[in-house]
Amino acid sequence: MVQREQSDFPLVAAIDLGSNSFHMVLAKVDHGEIRILERLGEKVQLAAGLNEKGELNEESMQRGLDCLRRFAQLTNGLPDGAVRIVGTNALREARNRGQFMRQVRQIIGHKVDVISGREEARLIYLGVAHTQADDQGKRLVVDIGGGSTEFIVGERFESLLRESLQMGCVSYTRAYFSEGKVNASRYAQAYTTARLELMNIEQAIGRMGWQEAVGASGTIRTIGQCMQGSGQKEPGLTLEGLNWVKRRVIRAGHVDKIDIPGLKADRRATLPAGLAILEAIFDALGVQNMAHSDGALREGVLYDLLGRHQHEDVRERTLSALMERCHVDVDQASRVEHKALSLLGKVAGAWGLTEVRHADMLCWAARVHEVGLDIAHSQYHKHGAYLIEHADLAGFSRQEQQALAQLVRGHRRNLPSTERLAEFGEEATYLLRLCMLLRLAILYHHIRGNQTMPELAVEAGSDYLQLHFPEGWLDANPLTNADFAHEAQFWAKAGYTLTAR
Amino acid sequence: MVQREQSDFPLVAAIDLGSNSFHMVLAKVDHGEIRILERLGEKVQLAAGLNEKGELNEESMQRGLDCLRRFAQLTNGLPDGAVRIVGTNALREARNRGQFMRQVRQIIGHKVDVISGREEARLIYLGVAHTQADDQGKRLVVDIGGGSTEFIVGERFESLLRESLQMGCVSYTRAYFSEGKVNASRYAQAYTTARLELMNIEQAIGRMGWQEAVGASGTIRTIGQCMQGSGQKEPGLTLEGLNWVKRRVIRAGHVDKIDIPGLKADRRATLPAGLAILEAIFDALGVQNMAHSDGALREGVLYDLLGRHQHEDVRERTLSALMERCHVDVDQASRVEHKALSLLGKVAGAWGLTEVRHADMLCWAARVHEVGLDIAHSQYHKHGAYLIEHADLAGFSRQEQQALAQLVRGHRRNLPSTERLAEFGEEATYLLRLCMLLRLAILYHHIRGNQTMPELAVEAGSDYLQLHFPEGWLDANPLTNADFAHEAQFWAKAGYTLTAR
Repeated sequence: MVQREQSDFPLVAAIDLGSNSFHMVLAKVDHGEIRILERLGEKVQLAAGLNEKGELNEESMQRGLDCLRRFAQLTNGLPDGAVRIVGTNALREARNRGQFMRQVRQIIGHKVDVISGREEARLIYLGVAHTQADDQGKRLVVDIGGGSTEFIVGERFESLLRESLQMGCVSYTRAYFSEGKVNASRYAQAYTTARLELMNIEQAIGRMGWQEAVGASGTIRTIGQCMQGSGQKEPGLTLEGLNWVKRRVIRAGHVDKIDIPGLKADRRATLPAGLAILEAIFDALGVQNMAHSDGALREGVLYDLLGRHQHEDVRERTLSALMERCHVDVDQASRVEHKALSLLGKVAGAWGLTEVRHADMLCWAARVHEVGLDIAHSQYHKHGAYLIEHADLAGFSRQEQQALAQLVRGHRRNLPSTERLAEFGEEATYLLRLCMLLRLAILYHHIRGNQTMPELAVEAGSDYLQLHFPEGWLDANPLTNADFAHEAQFWAKAGYTLTAR
Repeated sequence: MVQREQSDFPLVAAIDLGSNSFHMVLAKVDHGEIRILERLGEKVQLAAGLNEKGELNEESMQRGLDCLRRFAQLTNGLPDGAVRIVGTNALREARNRGQFMRQVRQIIGHKVDVISGREEARLIYLGVAHTQADDQGKRLVVDIGGGSTEFIVGERFESLLRESLQMGCVSYTRAYFSEGKVNASRYAQAYTTARLELMNIEQAIGRMGWQEAVGASGTIRTIGQCMQGSGQKEPGLTLEGLNWVKRRVIRAGHVDKIDIPGLKADRRATLPAGLAILEAIFDALGVQNMAHSDGALREGVLYDLLGRHQHEDVRERTLSALMERCHVDVDQASRVEHKALSLLGKVAGAWGLTEVRHADMLCWAARVHEVGLDIAHSQYHKHGAYLIEHADLAGFSRQEQQALAQLVRGHRRNLPSTERLAEFGEEATYLLRLCMLLRLAILYHHIRGNQTMPELAVEAGSDYLQLHFPEGWLDANPLTNADFAHEAQFWAKAGYTLTAR
């Protein structure tokens, strides 16, 4: 991991492209502390624009982009690395997200990271933990989003269990309360479906145990506000209060007629669905009382970003844990990592690999390139790529996992094909070149520490790389010579010339 | 695992469809001991018939089938379970193996199991261990086949390390000694390629350590016989002897002109390739002397078959290890397994699921259906299927792994599709029904032991299954009711009616 200077980023921003709302926080970094300067939020309802084919329609994308044009005024001029934009369930599901993400990048000038449900859960917990009093004991955090609901059990700043279920107030509104109609039977259907989903996780959460429950989303805040009129004595959300709100909602017959003091107009539509999901959660997990926290995904993204700047990158820990779990030969991984970085230093200029993320990606790939051996020896590069692409890797975005998987898959046999690389757009050339450097480092240490290897001089151009061994060394080491000659054949297929002299 | 009576099989046979030769052993089982009655072997050279597209040509398949017609005379009338036929590298590689395997089944009346390289290694070791004196210390076993070479380090009857490399005397003959020409440069090329392959495993074998080396294939036996003329004093294969044979082979210039007393005509063609591979093995692994064993893959298959009959099925141990490694909830797996077997008992007749292998497959699937959770929660049925299909699972054939992977993949969400099932030919219907029973058992225990579940009456017909709950139970348990109603929708897509009353 290449280290950045924290003082490079006096202002940082996090943007959360949620399925229901888009949010932004802008903050100042002051002696390693975060001071929030600005919070923005708009109810974009992106998930409502997902059609049967799993594509976002034009209107919903337009609503999102309009919102981001407003956000962009605050992020203008912030450097690379100071802004992080994350996409959640609606973008996980949207087949045409690429199109939307490119437009976002044009507007904001920073790329969008689509994150997995469990990574979302981890970041939500981080946001909540930083805005709640640091109580002793375990905390259950629930975030009902538009398309998914996240559950975390954590202690202090550490999440211990992270789950994400495919149920959200926008998707349930579409499925059970279409056209705004509400009645007891529709409500019961939504509730039952949520209970069935919850059966997948209720035991694990029960076994983990927790002392206090915290809700962290606009939906939960809204329901909490609705309860204020119920005359309940306790603070927070209670089962009694839930039932009071539920009676009023069902009695209304239509969302437009719900008569609860303090309920905002733009929250009416998704209230019945949110309520059914929350009641199912209370029942399934045995919640009696739930506090509400204003800390959420966007705050979590901010604290995670700050951690990266302060050399506490959670991605480092994630990869170490994966290496251990998959019994990686750490000595070899470390040899390959050092050699790969040394090669990168020599060709970074010529090959345009000068950004921190290039070095990060190369180090990560070196560490995990052999994880697939834990599944089987045959085709282990493919198994490793599968693991990297699909595992819950805390701290990584989907795109990072996909790029890393490509490097792992391409570390032996064929280099990544043009078709595979095409998915990475303008990153394709960099990815191919990083893969080539990784392979050279692996070949260089093919003998795995059994032989002292000589220093190399390296020269690179747009379509070639030359390795200069000490005079006579290759002739004296015909195996290495054969190894590089074999490698040159793979490079030739990708249009590059590799020579070792 | 359903238990079989050993006395059911007084005669057992193992057939090995190797890339170079086909072999058969027929044995009598006598008080749990194996007495070999007959050994047959023919040099079919199946791998020589693999074309660039990875398909076996007509002539090579015909040679194989002709050989099996002769073998069939000895296996005629042996019952299901008494004969095991395994295919190795040539069949692992052949894209059109399905066609060949169907014809084999017609001739021999038993199905062919294609096994992975590591499973082949395990079985070879078993064969060697049963035919060698039971020395103390670790043993390195090497088997140079036609398409792959297996390496095992083991102790007594247990293999500790199993590797398989893609190098064999038939494939290397095609690549380096085409048209029978031999010279020093061709030999050096073959040797170097073998050394590069060996770099992948030499450290692991070195770390494991071993006291004696044993070779177990016709190629190694032939080279050993050639050495007899060298005047070497030690028994076994030596480096000195290898060099003596090598000089004579290179000097000959063509395989037809190799002049070594005792060399059989049908062994000439692949001798230079086998020799280059063996010399690379001696050099890479530091072998000084190698004994030869007549025990090999086919004997290993026989002892493995006997173990299955005597309730020492290695597949049981393999799955237990996998469950532990993947942190499977064993209580839930065991609940599901018992319920699945109980359901099977009730519908076996109506659904034609009366064979032992059906019950085996259902038990196995119940045990491992949640392994994918170890990778990620989202889509874990797919991750589990990937693991089961690609992992080195000792004792399982490829087809068994593929069938098991289908059950794991189909245990939630959609049932296996018609297209996927089509790969399993006449097994497709059974596989779908086993999958349905597995799903019912999982739904039945959806609450994971938190609730006492009632006994069920079950009724099945060709396209339906009815579950009868005690009067009023489903009404009192609306979640389970909703669960089965939801499940019925998946069954309807597969043309089956599920009713729960």
